[in-house]
Amino acid sequence: MDRTSARKSRHISESTTTRLSIYLRCLTTLDQTGVETISSKDLAGQFHLNSALIRKDLAYFGEFGVRGVGYNVRELRQQVIRILGLDRDLRVVIVGAGNLGLALSDYRGFNSEGCRIVALLDNAPAKVGTASRGGIPVRHIDEIERLVRDERVNIAVLAVPAGSAQTLLDRVVGAGVRAVLNFVPERLRAPEGVSLKDVDLKIQIEGLAFSLARSPEGS
Amino acid sequence: MDRTSARKSRHISESTTTRLSIYLRCLTTLDQTGVETISSKDLAGQFHLNSALIRKDLAYFGEFGVRGVGYNVRELRQQVIRILGLDRDLRVVIVGAGNLGLALSDYRGFNSEGCRIVALLDNAPAKVGTASRGGIPVRHIDEIERLVRDERVNIAVLAVPAGSAQTLLDRVVGAGVRAVLNFVPERLRAPEGVSLKDVDLKIQIEGLAFSLARSPEGS
Repeated sequence: MDRTSARKSRHISESTTTRLSIYLRCLTTLDQTGVETISSKDLAGQFHLNSALIRKDLAYFGEFGVRGVGYNVRELRQQVIRILGLDRDLRVVIVGAGNLGLALSDYRGFNSEGCRIVALLDNAPAKVGTASRGGIPVRHIDEIERLVRDERVNIAVLAVPAGSAQTLLDRVVGAGVRAVLNFVPERLRAPEGVSLKDVDLKIQIEGLAFSLARSPEGS
Repeated sequence: MDRTSARKSRHISESTTTRLSIYLRCLTTLDQTGVETISSKDLAGQFHLNSALIRKDLAYFGEFGVRGVGYNVRELRQQVIRILGLDRDLRVVIVGAGNLGLALSDYRGFNSEGCRIVALLDNAPAKVGTASRGGIPVRHIDEIERLVRDERVNIAVLAVPAGSAQTLLDRVVGAGVRAVLNFVPERLRAPEGVSLKDVDLKIQIEGLAFSLARSPEGS
């Protein structure tokens, strides 16, 4: 297998998609401030990124940019949106209407750029029929099948107590959801063909611990 | 500048510390299941990581591992904890006792491995004096100076409404906090010497959008 085909066939890592998300934010900022073209070097410089990695990441998906001129900001932004799959509708349910579920349902970033929170799901009679502060309705978990069918929900966010996470994951997968974002600090199993992504907020704190350990005042 | 000194002097990127956090989780799992030594190749294989990158990341911090034998799991785990700065006490306050603040204060991962949530801070009279479900007390924001001095708080987590984030960041920094984790989807400015880390939950959703776009059923 030569180098090219090895590269074409490799699995696209999570860190690559995370970097694409970061490029998207930078390109959105540039577009909003009226910048029309940018080189990978300037893009890297302005946003503290690695210019070689930018070129490598983008080259993997096709030929963007013109040598000596750089990338057209608006076009590249559209391409990254397309690569990330954000040009299709993302319809999200949040399972669990506790503090975390309610906080996530009103999280500003979620309801933007092709992404829409359809409902919170819970089974507590006191919660079903209410709504989050931002107006996202709380529906009974038994409505999941209908929401997948009629509202084309394709992502479930798990924000439930630890003991019940696997049962609820199985439930939403059974209803046809193929992508699950898990906030429960518990190791879950998903069947083949289902994307399961764990969010580990402790990693963010660990990044800060590292910078404290390295700072002159922190020693 | 030769290759070695270039490498030694480079800035340690956020993605490196994130990878170290991931290695720590893997090593903890291995240690708990009684594995004593492991090669970078097996470590990579078991946890879907890149073995060359593991060797590079660890070599940056010193010589670990024995050629042909691999790493001693327990020793390497301790080294990674030390590198990440998790061998020192992390004392955390969460600013904002709304849904997100309450959810974070009881988030299991936060109160572990050298990390302790000291208090939630708010200014609403109805909230001050109460506690989260897990027992973290809600104190008045005016206590921040005392908490930094007496309880050695060194990390603040911002979970407040968008408009007030910069004011509260300035407040905790003024009180002596040098590391801030920001959940508010707003661009904040921190003075030099203060680590400010933004958590953007939308990136997690975007990773799922990408896998949906690539899956056979997603097209």
